[in-house]
Amino acid sequence: MITEKRILECFKHLFSPANQDEIKIGPGDDAAVIAANHFDLVHSVDIAHEDVHFPKDSLPEDIAYRATAIALSDLAAMGAYPKFFSIGLMADEVKISWYEQFANGLQKIIKEYNILLIGGDVTKGSKTVCVNVFGHPFNEVLKRSTANIGDKVFITGQLGKSRQGLKDWNSKRDTSFINNFFYPKPKFEFAKIISDHATSCIDISDGLYSDLNQICFSSKVGAKIFIEKIPITYDLNDLTFGDDYELCFTAPDHSTQYLAENGFYMIGEIDNSQKIEFYEANKKIDLKQKGWDPFA
Amino acid sequence: MITEKRILECFKHLFSPANQDEIKIGPGDDAAVIAANHFDLVHSVDIAHEDVHFPKDSLPEDIAYRATAIALSDLAAMGAYPKFFSIGLMADEVKISWYEQFANGLQKIIKEYNILLIGGDVTKGSKTVCVNVFGHPFNEVLKRSTANIGDKVFITGQLGKSRQGLKDWNSKRDTSFINNFFYPKPKFEFAKIISDHATSCIDISDGLYSDLNQICFSSKVGAKIFIEKIPITYDLNDLTFGDDYELCFTAPDHSTQYLAENGFYMIGEIDNSQKIEFYEANKKIDLKQKGWDPFA
Repeated sequence: MITEKRILECFKHLFSPANQDEIKIGPGDDAAVIAANHFDLVHSVDIAHEDVHFPKDSLPEDIAYRATAIALSDLAAMGAYPKFFSIGLMADEVKISWYEQFANGLQKIIKEYNILLIGGDVTKGSKTVCVNVFGHPFNEVLKRSTANIGDKVFITGQLGKSRQGLKDWNSKRDTSFINNFFYPKPKFEFAKIISDHATSCIDISDGLYSDLNQICFSSKVGAKIFIEKIPITYDLNDLTFGDDYELCFTAPDHSTQYLAENGFYMIGEIDNSQKIEFYEANKKIDLKQKGWDPFA
Repeated sequence: MITEKRILECFKHLFSPANQDEIKIGPGDDAAVIAANHFDLVHSVDIAHEDVHFPKDSLPEDIAYRATAIALSDLAAMGAYPKFFSIGLMADEVKISWYEQFANGLQKIIKEYNILLIGGDVTKGSKTVCVNVFGHPFNEVLKRSTANIGDKVFITGQLGKSRQGLKDWNSKRDTSFINNFFYPKPKFEFAKIISDHATSCIDISDGLYSDLNQICFSSKVGAKIFIEKIPITYDLNDLTFGDDYELCFTAPDHSTQYLAENGFYMIGEIDNSQKIEFYEANKKIDLKQKGWDPFA
């Protein structure tokens, strides 16, 4: 039987040394101590569970990377950049190599985003990763509740690639889309640019339709969406599937040209309808007639 | 089927309103924003899983309270007081009343310790609670690695009450010990006093023997323990069972009188032996001969 101590040893090389500028005490004690004298701290928690958020046969490295990336994406959605994270890992593996490979996935994302692992807990049970992320805002934080009527609606990239990746993984097809599912890239570079323009923002984790609905509900507005302007991968169900981790945001009309020139997709506009309506060639359409299943 | 949204509604009344002094954005957005301009922030994460950390037949209210209390105890062990927390909840219950009762347990501890719930995530799976706690140090933070040779070893209270409570729960006996198991009380009041005296500190979650070993290992020291000075509940296995959430700390000899007068139990002293040895009537003893099973 492998002990908790032996498992924790797999992660030791990832731990941030204490006495850095912001981390006074890192892992190894009862808690971490963050020197918090300068900036606001943005914090989010995200759980990923096998069979719900990743397939049961996922590789440990992929689980670690994906769970952390998804949690980091919430910081991007707030217009914040990441600084550190802590992790609660539950797993039922009897081989220590599983934990070592999980640590490899963490190391990959630690290097990629230059973040510090400041603490964690490990226990036995069905595979579940609880990731706590911390960061600082680039500028003002971006909320969901502050979209204005007349704002334009933007997204940062193509939808549905991750959906295709999960399908390909499940049917054992080796395609590049699989990386979109297991290695989502939180949009920090975009978040930085958006921070100076956006009136509201969310990351597309549950699907564009559901997440834009969150902005509309919180901001007490509605939206017109021009479906021919949305870059999709396979079909209209890419609007509901989620797992994209692109950002959806609103910005005033006068920012449209700048944002379009910087690669953002203008896909609609905010109105006072309190609901989301879809348009094609300036005509309101019923997506269900086009094969769209909002519960897909 | 109950939706995630419906589950989240069970917790809405617990959410801290934003624009408080320290919480600029509370739950309901992608992340919480903590104004971090004044004090160091102490953070810990703790996972509680059914069958490992609480019995499968535990009441939802009890699970919520216990999981949060245990996480808070890590702050006390650092010489810190609690300010806010976030929670990742995984559960497989089909009745909404389960989540409502879970929320009642959270409400109880929120009121008791005057803490703010700043965020969370909910997903489906075997019952698991990941609690992230945040606080500020009373004074200097208390580490594990700073015990000195010649220091005395103290504990804050009787060991084994929680062990007895779990036994009683499992055998359907209705005793007051059950509350010790499900409603552990993080020792913040003691932590405040200790902060001015202790050289190192840990909370007794895995058993006095194991946790004191952590202090000794981190501080590169050993300890002599006088077993007749340890208040226990049932037998010597109370030294290894854990779940006490009392604090174990070291302090210089000159603090002994003050600490003894304030209700702390002086149970031993730190030496350079690199191991923990037990003494009775000034004689070194072998606890195993007295029926002690370190793997109980």
